[in-house]
Amino acid sequence: MTPPSDHAGAVLTIDLDAIASNYRQLDERLGKTACAAVVKADGYGLGIAPVARALAEAGCASFFVATIEEGIELRAILPEAEIAVLNGAPAEAVDEVARHGLIPVLNGPDQIEAWRAYIERAGASLAILHCDTGMARLGLTQSELEALCAAGAEGIPFRCVMSHLACADDPAHPLNGEQLALFQDARARLGRRFGPSPASLANSSGIFLGPAYHFDLARPGVALYGVNPTPGQPNPMAEAVQLQGKIIGLREIDRAMTVGYGATHRVTRGSRIATVAVGYADGFLRSLSNRAYGYIGTVRVKMVGRVSMDLTTFDVSALPPEDVRPGTMVTLIGRKHPIDALAAEAGTTGYEILTSLGRRYERRYVGD
Amino acid sequence: MTPPSDHAGAVLTIDLDAIASNYRQLDERLGKTACAAVVKADGYGLGIAPVARALAEAGCASFFVATIEEGIELRAILPEAEIAVLNGAPAEAVDEVARHGLIPVLNGPDQIEAWRAYIERAGASLAILHCDTGMARLGLTQSELEALCAAGAEGIPFRCVMSHLACADDPAHPLNGEQLALFQDARARLGRRFGPSPASLANSSGIFLGPAYHFDLARPGVALYGVNPTPGQPNPMAEAVQLQGKIIGLREIDRAMTVGYGATHRVTRGSRIATVAVGYADGFLRSLSNRAYGYIGTVRVKMVGRVSMDLTTFDVSALPPEDVRPGTMVTLIGRKHPIDALAAEAGTTGYEILTSLGRRYERRYVGD
Repeated sequence: MTPPSDHAGAVLTIDLDAIASNYRQLDERLGKTACAAVVKADGYGLGIAPVARALAEAGCASFFVATIEEGIELRAILPEAEIAVLNGAPAEAVDEVARHGLIPVLNGPDQIEAWRAYIERAGASLAILHCDTGMARLGLTQSELEALCAAGAEGIPFRCVMSHLACADDPAHPLNGEQLALFQDARARLGRRFGPSPASLANSSGIFLGPAYHFDLARPGVALYGVNPTPGQPNPMAEAVQLQGKIIGLREIDRAMTVGYGATHRVTRGSRIATVAVGYADGFLRSLSNRAYGYIGTVRVKMVGRVSMDLTTFDVSALPPEDVRPGTMVTLIGRKHPIDALAAEAGTTGYEILTSLGRRYERRYVGD
Repeated sequence: MTPPSDHAGAVLTIDLDAIASNYRQLDERLGKTACAAVVKADGYGLGIAPVARALAEAGCASFFVATIEEGIELRAILPEAEIAVLNGAPAEAVDEVARHGLIPVLNGPDQIEAWRAYIERAGASLAILHCDTGMARLGLTQSELEALCAAGAEGIPFRCVMSHLACADDPAHPLNGEQLALFQDARARLGRRFGPSPASLANSSGIFLGPAYHFDLARPGVALYGVNPTPGQPNPMAEAVQLQGKIIGLREIDRAMTVGYGATHRVTRGSRIATVAVGYADGFLRSLSNRAYGYIGTVRVKMVGRVSMDLTTFDVSALPPEDVRPGTMVTLIGRKHPIDALAAEAGTTGYEILTSLGRRYERRYVGD
């Protein structure tokens, strides 16, 4: 690779071709079901502008973001795309949502009423109706759905009816089937009351639960970015992220001592410790302390001691000194050590690894 | 407080008066010892520009950052300040460091040699010499110090000699005394060889270890921002951060069910769940799942279920319905629930809570 700029402590490489190819793979797997893309949280930490453009070029026409601000940002990037806002819009923000051509996800009676009032004032405009089937987070409860079918929401054109899966990454979990049944029921009831509309249930992992979960529109997010949507099985997606941290200090341990804050790791005389310019302020989570691995070339090296704010220390005793110098890059995320591996070491998910990726990294986009 | 803008999911309030007052308190405690300020990692996540300006107005003349890029950014904010770069400078970056009037911390023989060569070329320019006394991270080893005293580094004017404490937040830890003794020894040896120069050892917690640790220049960071530098004792610092998340959905649970991803929390009929527009993509760490607390007014509410990317759910069953509506703010960090409390719930430190603070928050600076 091209060496990093003189003062970059780490290089984050984002492969837009891999993201585009992941989109096409999911789109193909979905057959006639349309494939949207979730690009919330700054494109899962990878940069909403390049990511959304690459996805649009790969054929994606529908995008989901979390917040209105993200929707406004994406609208400037993709003037023609369909953009839905998962967190919906409170009454005081409906005009702004409509002005930017965003589709609000209506998550409760208050948001439905706000959108109905907007339409009464300004004319029909699409919305997505969210029925909760097992997250207890956003979306209509069963009782609210009944009340809606009994009374309100006349005149809102639904782009689709959606729900969200809680346990799709665990195909054996009984909640998947329960949610599917509740969603089918909700859809039927809404259809009888308001006429048919498309349906959307599957997130990344939901796509892999099979065609029964696909409906009309799927909403993958994390799988597009290379995280395994089928934990425990081989990853069907292409890795899209590489993170390399630069060694800025290298030391021959000349006395038995401890490494880092809290003195949590002991080293003996003759050990060699490399200090890499990546820390938890870069989203290299502190829970990786004494648990993460990296690679120097093909050699695995263990992170030792606590992750500190701007620095991380690796035991490089096993490598010949000529292979490890100030300036040598340590691969923290890459083919041999994908996001999911780092996530497991941190005790979290690939989602959090992605959205935590830091602002101090030199970011390089390849492909596209 | 002023209500948040129509589409802000959370408001982060940063009290610059509190930061200034924390600086003055530490400066006073230090007596004749000069008090620098560490503002790396974007001012510990609070915004380097407003934070550094407030500190300069409070009397701070010396600043420490981690990286050269941070140094360049700070130079544009404070043209006259003394700015030191903790990660130092590799040979290929020394010219840039000098051009911006930054003081490199020399962390090893390679950095010393690069700065010596720069001086030979361009004339004398201050640097800080870092001797390791127990971090095994950056700074000269004992052997490297001996070699330096035996041979090189002629002609580098040292702004000061520094080391860094590994366990200062635990006053009873034997490493504190060991590091102090090693530092005194290093300083004496360097003084005999190169003449006397000022010394710097204490970070935030180190200041509270007593005058023996103060030397000529202290380098507090986290205490300036309100994190307790004396864990287990009352916090002597003023809280400088408030984080309030907005409730965007409120639901009456109408059947026994589970909350959130992985179905990790059960709720019964009649419970009430409030969904707040803050998630781990905002730095509200996923390790807070089922562990964090928030406050609505003076009532403590428990976070239930997993933190998701953009959302968090709280059990608000104990509050009267009229006190909790969409738009109600939940205090996630505040006087009743300071950074240190949230850090304990996340199993981490206040440092990581600060540097993880998200980019989607509406940021408000008060004071100054």
